[in-house]
Amino acid sequence: MTLQQYMETISVDLKVGPDIRDVTGELNQVVASAGIRDGVLAASVVGSTGSVTTIEYEPGVVADLKRAINRLAPPGDDYAHEQAWHDGNGHSHVQAALMGPSIQIAVRDGRLLLGTWQQVVVINHDNRSRKRPVAVTVTGT
Amino acid sequence: MTLQQYMETISVDLKVGPDIRDVTGELNQVVASAGIRDGVLAASVVGSTGSVTTIEYEPGVVADLKRAINRLAPPGDDYAHEQAWHDGNGHSHVQAALMGPSIQIAVRDGRLLLGTWQQVVVINHDNRSRKRPVAVTVTGT
Amino acid sequence: MTLQQYMETISVDLKVGPDIRDVTGELNQVVASAGIRDGVLAASVVGSTGSVTTIEYEPGVVADLKRAINRLAPPGDDYAHEQAWHDGNGHSHVQAALMGPSIQIAVRDGRLLLGTWQQVVVINHDNRSRKRPVAVTVTGT
Repeated sequence: MTLQQYMETISVDLKVGPDIRDVTGELNQVVASAGIRDGVLAASVVGSTGSVTTIEYEPGVVADLKRAINRLAPPGDDYAHEQAWHDGNGHSHVQAALMGPSIQIAVRDGRLLLGTWQQVVVINHDNRSRKRPVAVTVTGT
Repeated sequence: MTLQQYMETISVDLKVGPDIRDVTGELNQVVASAGIRDGVLAASVVGSTGSVTTIEYEPGVVADLKRAINRLAPPGDDYAHEQAWHDGNGHSHVQAALMGPSIQIAVRDGRLLLGTWQQVVVINHDNRSRKRPVAVTVTGT
Repeated sequence: MTLQQYMETISVDLKVGPDIRDVTGELNQVVASAGIRDGVLAASVVGSTGSVTTIEYEPGVVADLKRAINRLAPPGDDYAHEQAWHDGNGHSHVQAALMGPSIQIAVRDGRLLLGTWQQVVVINHDNRSRKRPVAVTVTGT
């Protein structure tokens, strides 16, 4: 079968960071729109204060992960970015860079191949609410 | 030449986390089975307490990395996940989310293009031994 | 349209780590050479003491990120790798493993789809300057 590629950008509403949202449903919807049964889905966050990973999306893990993210780069610390720009989000930039802006997940039988308790999440690290574009590319048959 | 895609899921036996295993040989075997000489290999861990990265796989780095992972989210801390689920693996979820579940490595001349002392490793962060499925997709010619 | 794939390895000059370099221009040049307008770009660092992510590439964020990276695995700590190899870069290996060696970014209209203040950076964590090969694979139409 000939390899196909399908592209779509989803928009994710996120509150003041760290805010974590489950986008598994939206991504499976993109796979369905692609009409691709088997291949790989790549997602990259557009913007330097967002990131993407997978977690078991339940309130406990969400709270635990937020705390750990704020330990990586605490909001109250001094940041050189802040000295120059005064936008209060020095920690946001560092957190997002350490987490990384991209992920890729296998697509099998028309769905993301994830564990039963594994969801794809987009994270806003910024100090204000953001509508985050996430570029999705599905490659497969 | 027409672009091809090949899919396989490997299974990785891992002990109580953090446990780190070199899967470079298995992945090069998948590339060989794919019959693909040039392209890219994507690997994603199935399950929310596993991760994948590259290291120089020698006992020193393995020990150092385990220690650093346990600093990111110490096993002895209090976790909200634990309050609700009592399965003792709150730290595992946070560690895996920070490390990330996916990687992609260039394939050149029928092999992963890695440094001489660079291996792909799968990590189990869970508090019990796990057989971890890793979904592999190779795209190329 | 038939899916194409284009491969190129760029070489990035980096100083003693953590050193952070913006490679967005080089990657967009690879996309132009590929003649691919829409798809996805995958980049993987060759070598176990390098990593890749995105940041707002301005001096403040660069300084803040270097500090955070050195908190993840401080150069002055004791490392088991050091006990065996005495090359002084135990922290480099741990930092690079935690950051991750690969990224993939959407390509749209012949360019990487990034935020206005978002650049792709390659990081050298090693304790000496390095010329880092980064393998780039562009898949698309």
